[in-house]
Amino acid sequence: MQARNVRIGIIGSGAIGGFYGLMLARAGFDVHFLLRSEYEVVRERGLSLDSAVHGQIHLPVQAYARAADMPLCDWLLVGAKATSNAELAPLIMQAAAPDARVLLLQNGLGVEEQLRPALRGDLHLLGGLCFICVNRKGPGEICHQSLGAVNLGYHSGPAQDGGAGVAEEGAGLFRAAGIDSQAMADLDQARWQKLVWNVPYNGLSVLLQASTTPLMGDADSRALIQALMAEVVAGASACGRELPAGYAEHLFRMTEKMPDYWPSMYHDHLQQRPLELQAIYAEPLARARAAGCALPRMEALYQALAFIDRRGRQA
Amino acid sequence: MQARNVRIGIIGSGAIGGFYGLMLARAGFDVHFLLRSEYEVVRERGLSLDSAVHGQIHLPVQAYARAADMPLCDWLLVGAKATSNAELAPLIMQAAAPDARVLLLQNGLGVEEQLRPALRGDLHLLGGLCFICVNRKGPGEICHQSLGAVNLGYHSGPAQDGGAGVAEEGAGLFRAAGIDSQAMADLDQARWQKLVWNVPYNGLSVLLQASTTPLMGDADSRALIQALMAEVVAGASACGRELPAGYAEHLFRMTEKMPDYWPSMYHDHLQQRPLELQAIYAEPLARARAAGCALPRMEALYQALAFIDRRGRQA
Repeated sequence: MQARNVRIGIIGSGAIGGFYGLMLARAGFDVHFLLRSEYEVVRERGLSLDSAVHGQIHLPVQAYARAADMPLCDWLLVGAKATSNAELAPLIMQAAAPDARVLLLQNGLGVEEQLRPALRGDLHLLGGLCFICVNRKGPGEICHQSLGAVNLGYHSGPAQDGGAGVAEEGAGLFRAAGIDSQAMADLDQARWQKLVWNVPYNGLSVLLQASTTPLMGDADSRALIQALMAEVVAGASACGRELPAGYAEHLFRMTEKMPDYWPSMYHDHLQQRPLELQAIYAEPLARARAAGCALPRMEALYQALAFIDRRGRQA
Repeated sequence: MQARNVRIGIIGSGAIGGFYGLMLARAGFDVHFLLRSEYEVVRERGLSLDSAVHGQIHLPVQAYARAADMPLCDWLLVGAKATSNAELAPLIMQAAAPDARVLLLQNGLGVEEQLRPALRGDLHLLGGLCFICVNRKGPGEICHQSLGAVNLGYHSGPAQDGGAGVAEEGAGLFRAAGIDSQAMADLDQARWQKLVWNVPYNGLSVLLQASTTPLMGDADSRALIQALMAEVVAGASACGRELPAGYAEHLFRMTEKMPDYWPSMYHDHLQQRPLELQAIYAEPLARARAAGCALPRMEALYQALAFIDRRGRQA
């Protein structure tokens, strides 16, 4: 079990940061939330969670509008969109204690590589993959539909053992808060595994304006999802990451059993926010291509989404 | 030149049937239009063409609500959607003179094969590919933006010479009406050539809700169009139809120069009509697959469109 005197900072308190921060605070950790547009509301009213798994939870929280006002934290959980990583480094460093652990709770490939050069050398950098159906309902209000596990792996920093100890320490934090969590020996492998879900469902939710239940209820979209999953598995393999046998099938069956869900990219599209296309599509495609592996359906999906994203931002 | 005493019937007088029928009537042919929902309006007001090429044309026309009321025709031009071919055979035979020529002005593969078994043996069956930007503006009102050529080829029937003479006779009709027209020795080849345009632009207009100008103005959609065109060329080749060198590039450049255009599938989608997915996507994919050739982007596009089409008809 984890000592409860660990101080945790949450950078980007949307659905992901808000959910995990709130669960950790409820478990007794000293959690500090950096907020932007929701600062006033959350400072006054705290955070509310409506969870199909954990019930109704409401807590007053320690909220900040500026990173400089936060106490120095031992762990920093970054739940902001991967599209804003360039702006995050200064905020992370202001809130990071010496030797702190920075955990990127983001999807896709290349997010740590993008952030690392801008971070201090004493900081440990980790990546975390969240298997969860969660959405923001309104300012400070989070709706949790199902799942919740976090798989995390060490990326880079001063750890001597390849970071296994630090990753295990992080998994321990989540488990102490009642959340399934595994330390992964290979972060890239964990990221490819998550892509098997994100590539089809995030993209098709935007392209077909459809949530998981209709996508899983139509023979053609099912076949397209399975073909996209198979391409991601092939891309991972070309990049030296053999995913567990039957992994795509497992995610497909899991999604069939999930309550109807609109993936985060659909919400980004609806809110006219930039889509996370670089990390979820462009970087994996580039790595697979460099390894001699073409992923034609995924590339077509990426090109269609890039058109939609660009048009959305011009409008 | 063509004798003007040829009697021509138009089955399905939408944009395509209306345009060519009107041009042939204006050239002095005896043209008879079979109409459905637009019968009353067209009988009273005739047909109007607003053409960027030919100017404003308005003609009273011989309109019919029932095929049984039409005189027997030497040529029947079928401009109805390929999705309604099953219902067309009885209408065609009611209006067909002995030994008549039936020309399907439809896109895609397999449309003649679908209709042929339901036709009388004395009827010649031909296919025609229309390279034209034309739309219905309202009942009896046609807007012609650009192009206009018809390439046609013989499919089956009592012709002794493989149908070259009948196809040439058909091309002569169109040329007599001021329309570019070529008889093609190989109808399948002509149909594959047309697919090089239809597969990317029809599908993407529905999927991305975009007309040709924005599709040609974005680097990602351009790359996707070119990749889809290359797949159609590869599919044709696998099926024994080598398209002329540089043909895809030629259509791509032609589309760049065209005025902005919404392909017919977009209008079908907007009007909640069934999409012509069988002839334009499913049949070419099946033929390429049977020849050992995978077309992954085209298949992904087909699956996405099939999802959209099915949802649209359930709604």
